[in-house]
Amino acid sequence: MSSDMSSNVEREARHKARMQRKKAVIDKSIEAASEERGLFLINTGTGKGKSSAAFGVLARALGHGMQCAVIQFIKNRSDTGEEAFFRTHPDVRWHVMGDGFTWETQDDAKDKATARAAWDQASAYLRDEKIDLLILDEFTYTLKYGWLTLEEVVPVFGERPWMQHVIVTGRAAPDGLIEEADTVTDMSLKKHAYHAGVKAMPGIEW
Amino acid sequence: MSSDMSSNVEREARHKARMQRKKAVIDKSIEAASEERGLFLINTGTGKGKSSAAFGVLARALGHGMQCAVIQFIKNRSDTGEEAFFRTHPDVRWHVMGDGFTWETQDDAKDKATARAAWDQASAYLRDEKIDLLILDEFTYTLKYGWLTLEEVVPVFGERPWMQHVIVTGRAAPDGLIEEADTVTDMSLKKHAYHAGVKAMPGIEW
Repeated sequence: MSSDMSSNVEREARHKARMQRKKAVIDKSIEAASEERGLFLINTGTGKGKSSAAFGVLARALGHGMQCAVIQFIKNRSDTGEEAFFRTHPDVRWHVMGDGFTWETQDDAKDKATARAAWDQASAYLRDEKIDLLILDEFTYTLKYGWLTLEEVVPVFGERPWMQHVIVTGRAAPDGLIEEADTVTDMSLKKHAYHAGVKAMPGIEW
Repeated sequence: MSSDMSSNVEREARHKARMQRKKAVIDKSIEAASEERGLFLINTGTGKGKSSAAFGVLARALGHGMQCAVIQFIKNRSDTGEEAFFRTHPDVRWHVMGDGFTWETQDDAKDKATARAAWDQASAYLRDEKIDLLILDEFTYTLKYGWLTLEEVVPVFGERPWMQHVIVTGRAAPDGLIEEADTVTDMSLKKHAYHAGVKAMPGIEW
């Protein structure tokens, strides 16, 4: 056997041994995670992907035959690709309940009433055993602007049906909401095409 | 007019003025972003949501009537919710081309050949004008493990059709790939249900 071949064989054996050890560690940790229940996920941060990731999970849940609902708290446009794609699915209830960004409405009282109506719809789903996955898109802004309070919303999340999953998206999720959540991802921007002068492209941004 | 009412009116006027200034700044920045072209997005980091965000954009693109393709570089299971949901869509080409995690295969030579075959398929799409959106799921690992090199892949991304969008997902995207990308999001973990002993739940994790 040439020394090249022998070092190759040795390298492969070392790789195999290393991967066997890694597998043992991972298998043990998978075994330890045994509880089954509905999860509360938050996608926050200033980067892209907070809502997209929620809609990706929506597709995943629908692939498992789950009943789903989506409430968009800020958005007031109904020409988005995600709405066109999901709205007609028989297992999806899709609600566009916002009235646009604060700098578009310029009317705090109206924004507050709009947020209240959307939360009433959300609360109804948070009591509904038939809903397996509920997405509250851009919900964090209702807390940021003081239209809703942590004190009123947190208990409603906590008392939802045991197996119901909830995903909240939006920047600056407050600590009190993060405490209540199971899985929290912070999406941060490393680079953005927009800053390089590229338009918001259909199919990517909306 | 009571002083309460008057302070309310003043508060609302201030809110409106602040929002008008904000709108002017935002409108100007939207106007400045005028270029239209296909984008190269990377979802990286150690947190959740890298693949989910790509699949959310897939739904969005399909909602705009785009032609899409997905290649899964590591995954070898075909029981995921996302695959069940998207695979039968007439505008999606879905390829599961991995052979599992390195610690499952424990065979570096086989992993390398598998990555090479998946890249051949990706390269074909990266030359195909008909594909509007291409998702290379868990692609970064092919570079991390040295199965493919930056030198061979970067030019292929750079020479793709002008309006084609590409999304790459996976941990530890190398600098050379980030340089080539337009929009890069780092997903980081703030909290994870798994560490609290909750199983990987269908509809959420797969």
